[in-house]
Amino acid sequence: MTEWKDLAGRIEKDRHVLPVRVYYEDTDFSGAVYHANYLKFCERGRSDCLRLLGVHHHEMHWHETEGRMGFVVRRMLCDFRKPARIDDLLEIETRFREMRGARMELDQKVLRECETLFAAQVTVVLVDAAGRPKRFPKAMAEALKTF
Amino acid sequence: MTEWKDLAGRIEKDRHVLPVRVYYEDTDFSGAVYHANYLKFCERGRSDCLRLLGVHHHEMHWHETEGRMGFVVRRMLCDFRKPARIDDLLEIETRFREMRGARMELDQKVLRECETLFAAQVTVVLVDAAGRPKRFPKAMAEALKTF
Amino acid sequence: MTEWKDLAGRIEKDRHVLPVRVYYEDTDFSGAVYHANYLKFCERGRSDCLRLLGVHHHEMHWHETEGRMGFVVRRMLCDFRKPARIDDLLEIETRFREMRGARMELDQKVLRECETLFAAQVTVVLVDAAGRPKRFPKAMAEALKTF
Amino acid sequence: MTEWKDLAGRIEKDRHVLPVRVYYEDTDFSGAVYHANYLKFCERGRSDCLRLLGVHHHEMHWHETEGRMGFVVRRMLCDFRKPARIDDLLEIETRFREMRGARMELDQKVLRECETLFAAQVTVVLVDAAGRPKRFPKAMAEALKTF
Repeated sequence: MTEWKDLAGRIEKDRHVLPVRVYYEDTDFSGAVYHANYLKFCERGRSDCLRLLGVHHHEMHWHETEGRMGFVVRRMLCDFRKPARIDDLLEIETRFREMRGARMELDQKVLRECETLFAAQVTVVLVDAAGRPKRFPKAMAEALKTF
Repeated sequence: MTEWKDLAGRIEKDRHVLPVRVYYEDTDFSGAVYHANYLKFCERGRSDCLRLLGVHHHEMHWHETEGRMGFVVRRMLCDFRKPARIDDLLEIETRFREMRGARMELDQKVLRECETLFAAQVTVVLVDAAGRPKRFPKAMAEALKTF
Repeated sequence: MTEWKDLAGRIEKDRHVLPVRVYYEDTDFSGAVYHANYLKFCERGRSDCLRLLGVHHHEMHWHETEGRMGFVVRRMLCDFRKPARIDDLLEIETRFREMRGARMELDQKVLRECETLFAAQVTVVLVDAAGRPKRFPKAMAEALKTF
Repeated sequence: MTEWKDLAGRIEKDRHVLPVRVYYEDTDFSGAVYHANYLKFCERGRSDCLRLLGVHHHEMHWHETEGRMGFVVRRMLCDFRKPARIDDLLEIETRFREMRGARMELDQKVLRECETLFAAQVTVVLVDAAGRPKRFPKAMAEALKTF
């Protein structure tokens, strides 16, 4: 398997940046990116930011000592500013704003050449197998704090 | 072609209701519906509500006298309350809150047996071919006002 | 909760028919339905056909006596004939061709006013929790044979 | 805007390779990647292979001298061999088998550490604005022949 540099984006100071290309599947007949797909782009950004911090979904889902857990989006305020289009190279920016108990607050943006096309405030909660909020395990909390 | 009753849902007093079944495609590996898909369900609800009021996307997109136009979502506040699961029968509820100039404000909910799983406040704007806000054509404004 | 007639389509003699509306999410910037989405439509058809025969995904996934099992698509020959477009009312037709051991062969079509837009030959296999082929449980085999 | 190396994958001799990460959006409740999403991955591979050869969808869609045109998938034989899972790093391999008139035949694979999870034979046709097959413009034919 060949090496792929920066496939999970990069952490630059206090933000994570992930490049995303717009493909056929992302657009709709209006010619622009379908609105719900910006949420997918943001989820990719969050997943890859966590990946670079050493947090992996599949390990959380089948965790041996802490028990099964996972992140769920609880609230999202979405501001759709300008349309992205086929072939566009986008950058997904993720910043952690706050972390408390079982809850993380993030600010995310979809940019095209430094212009913000989409911005969101996101509340994510860590839950256990029964869907109940669960405090971040120590190792995870510390990994996130370095960021 | 056979007749399909209520395929576009029903208007009941001041709300539109659309039934939506949860299929494989809607879920993710956590077992629940993927969060961005609630936005798809809401978009189906808006489209079918407009359809019952006589407003069709394809006519707007290739409109002879008014010129090409379309709806875009400008802002959406999403509250993810409880997970929906495979095989669930959901109802998408759409209520118009306000209409002014080029702008519509709607309240939407995803329900399962009267329990709200997802709620959203949605701002939709009518735009012309250049993406500029455009006042609702008279016929459309009147159709929407009856609701 | 209101009643929704024919939400899972209808069985008419030796075929199952499910109505599907084309929404924004299904189209791409070319103006037509994105090619992979015909596979989603067909999966909805198979799921709802099984539903009417009394076979439910969530029961199979959390089955008490038979153990966890599920259907996987093993092979699909897809023939994309004509494009479907926004607002189109489609019908998904499903016919069982053969059932043997752990395997089902189906013929599926996506129709618009009796014209075939998409046709597929589909091989589906029942697998257990480890992904190994599993003979159809008796009750399921008999339900499918009536069709 | 930062530089992103290999975002469109790489051409290695007679094949194009694109890395694809599996995110939440790609999986379904069975825990594996939803079957139709392998077709999306393949479409990304084709798009990025063409991109590296100098062929861009948006230019084709709004082409000044040749008129509007685009690629459509006409036929696809899909072999689903093994499931991909959340967090997997996949490689999409694209090989051109034949090009004649308006038609291209490709072989595509989805690999995980050299193991083939999905294989497809794909027929793609270039069409004009009316959906009629259209011979490849000279510049495009020559770009593709170098591959």
